[in-house]
Amino acid sequence: MNGNILLDHGSGGLASQDLIGSLFLKYLKDPILHELEDAALLKPEKGRLVFSTDSYVVDPLQFPGGDIGELAINGTINDLAMRGANPLYLSLGVILEEGFPFSQLEEIVKSIADASKYAGVPVVTGDTKVVPKGKADKIFINTSGIGVVEDNVEVKTSRAQPGDIIIISGTLADHGITILTNREGLQVSGKIQSDTAPLHFLVKRLLDEMPDAIHTMRDPTRGGLGTTLCEIAKVTNLCMDISEKEIPMHGEVRAACELMGLDPLYLANEGKCIVIAAPDQAEIILQTMRSIQEGRESAIIGKVTEKYPGKVVMTTMSGGRRLVVPLSGEPLPRIC
Amino acid sequence: MNGNILLDHGSGGLASQDLIGSLFLKYLKDPILHELEDAALLKPEKGRLVFSTDSYVVDPLQFPGGDIGELAINGTINDLAMRGANPLYLSLGVILEEGFPFSQLEEIVKSIADASKYAGVPVVTGDTKVVPKGKADKIFINTSGIGVVEDNVEVKTSRAQPGDIIIISGTLADHGITILTNREGLQVSGKIQSDTAPLHFLVKRLLDEMPDAIHTMRDPTRGGLGTTLCEIAKVTNLCMDISEKEIPMHGEVRAACELMGLDPLYLANEGKCIVIAAPDQAEIILQTMRSIQEGRESAIIGKVTEKYPGKVVMTTMSGGRRLVVPLSGEPLPRIC
Repeated sequence: MNGNILLDHGSGGLASQDLIGSLFLKYLKDPILHELEDAALLKPEKGRLVFSTDSYVVDPLQFPGGDIGELAINGTINDLAMRGANPLYLSLGVILEEGFPFSQLEEIVKSIADASKYAGVPVVTGDTKVVPKGKADKIFINTSGIGVVEDNVEVKTSRAQPGDIIIISGTLADHGITILTNREGLQVSGKIQSDTAPLHFLVKRLLDEMPDAIHTMRDPTRGGLGTTLCEIAKVTNLCMDISEKEIPMHGEVRAACELMGLDPLYLANEGKCIVIAAPDQAEIILQTMRSIQEGRESAIIGKVTEKYPGKVVMTTMSGGRRLVVPLSGEPLPRIC
Repeated sequence: MNGNILLDHGSGGLASQDLIGSLFLKYLKDPILHELEDAALLKPEKGRLVFSTDSYVVDPLQFPGGDIGELAINGTINDLAMRGANPLYLSLGVILEEGFPFSQLEEIVKSIADASKYAGVPVVTGDTKVVPKGKADKIFINTSGIGVVEDNVEVKTSRAQPGDIIIISGTLADHGITILTNREGLQVSGKIQSDTAPLHFLVKRLLDEMPDAIHTMRDPTRGGLGTTLCEIAKVTNLCMDISEKEIPMHGEVRAACELMGLDPLYLANEGKCIVIAAPDQAEIILQTMRSIQEGRESAIIGKVTEKYPGKVVMTTMSGGRRLVVPLSGEPLPRIC
């Protein structure tokens, strides 16, 4: 497609219909979306519903390992999965800046369609707005999602308990360092790329096989592993005790963090989850996670204790002990 | 509250938590939202689910009769109601520009809370992002919503049939003309104000009392009554035959449209619906609609025929006949 987005594409008239028909519906194939009603009519669902929303404003729009479209699909799927839900439906709200090239929009919509298809979670309803040039930065995307939780699943932050093990589903800080190095135009190893991925396949396996042992799941996105663990410590008033040397990291990411003076504990991840679970099932949980693509580098990184209530402590590489506090005063804007 | 939004408020760290705690949670009181999990866990629902999303980028943010916050709540409630659903839950995704004053954000959040309370539909999950100054225009809001449809209800565009009556639930073009006159800084009568309102109370009464007679409901927002009727005509391949003199309009709105050379058929409404229904129940439907605040000025404006398949025709004030075509090439950006 040639040309650029015009204000008229957001008017609700013929140009809007053209944009939707020739671009969004070309790639997004769900029949419910194609009904083009103001709202999607879905079938009844047994079980508790889960509902989540996220806006995506990442800069740059495209980066090694993914783009804003893939991030928007996977991010909301992961928010649903972290409550133990099976993600069923997504909405797609797009805000476009006048002048944005069709060709770039088409790439993003393709990427949305591919990610939705891979995950098996369709986009069933959508909305497109256009604002004048200079009033937004190219494209912002909101996705909301609906999922359903099985009756025997009870995953929530407050269920973490003393003695539980803390697992991370893979290497840390890949997404954050990818965005930051790309934005700064730094030449770094081609091995550094975003970890954007949907986590619901991994979650489903865990909950199908050992529903009761999985107490808490959280994906450490904005604010990173450090801030997310601090939130869990605060809610539970328990101590999260982790070991730096157990945290999986790519060597290139570690080197880039050192070069840029960044703490990987606070960098965003977009395809990783923290799993807090019963210790007597530690080995089987770890093996199950490692058997799935998205969790192949899972590792036990610590345990929940009562030692420092509400705090996160980390044994450092050098054997020292460090208090981990929430991210504060260090703006890392637009990483997702 | 004093001060302005900083990039740090979108970092996911302490500043983000402060913003959410001191502002959003202060006004939005739903206990599910207050759990602050990544996704809201809701109870199971009987009946078919309905899901919708809309982004709001209106300029100006505040206008006579409402603001962006009220619009965002009512707009998504109305999209759900137009499918015959009882709206149950809303999500709230906010994109803020760095430097946006807290005081103005607080006004908008208050307005969101008031509209949500009036409608009886809580915000249960949310997300806040911040982009650098100049990368967005003050604030953009996305709301998505979930509703449930009773088994005996079947409201959809394709159900309109020959002989059906066409009703509009009140005066036309109030919202569109309010936004346009305010944006241009025109001094107009104080009686011109947005019609933003939730329509689910009206819809519920209609569907409780005569579920089978209500075939199609649509709210004529962007693109106005003209474009929305064209969409219905196209989907059904039927003719929408309306009479200009039956369309309710405030005198001040009509005068402002004439002054500005605007066709009220294409101006946005934010608290009105088109109801297409069985003719044998016309009087009782009209009376029911008029008995409710949001429908007190309801009027039958035409009927569905087979005369000009896929077309909208209007008998004008002067008795002539006019073909109504979809809005085209006239950008009226950011009216919602």
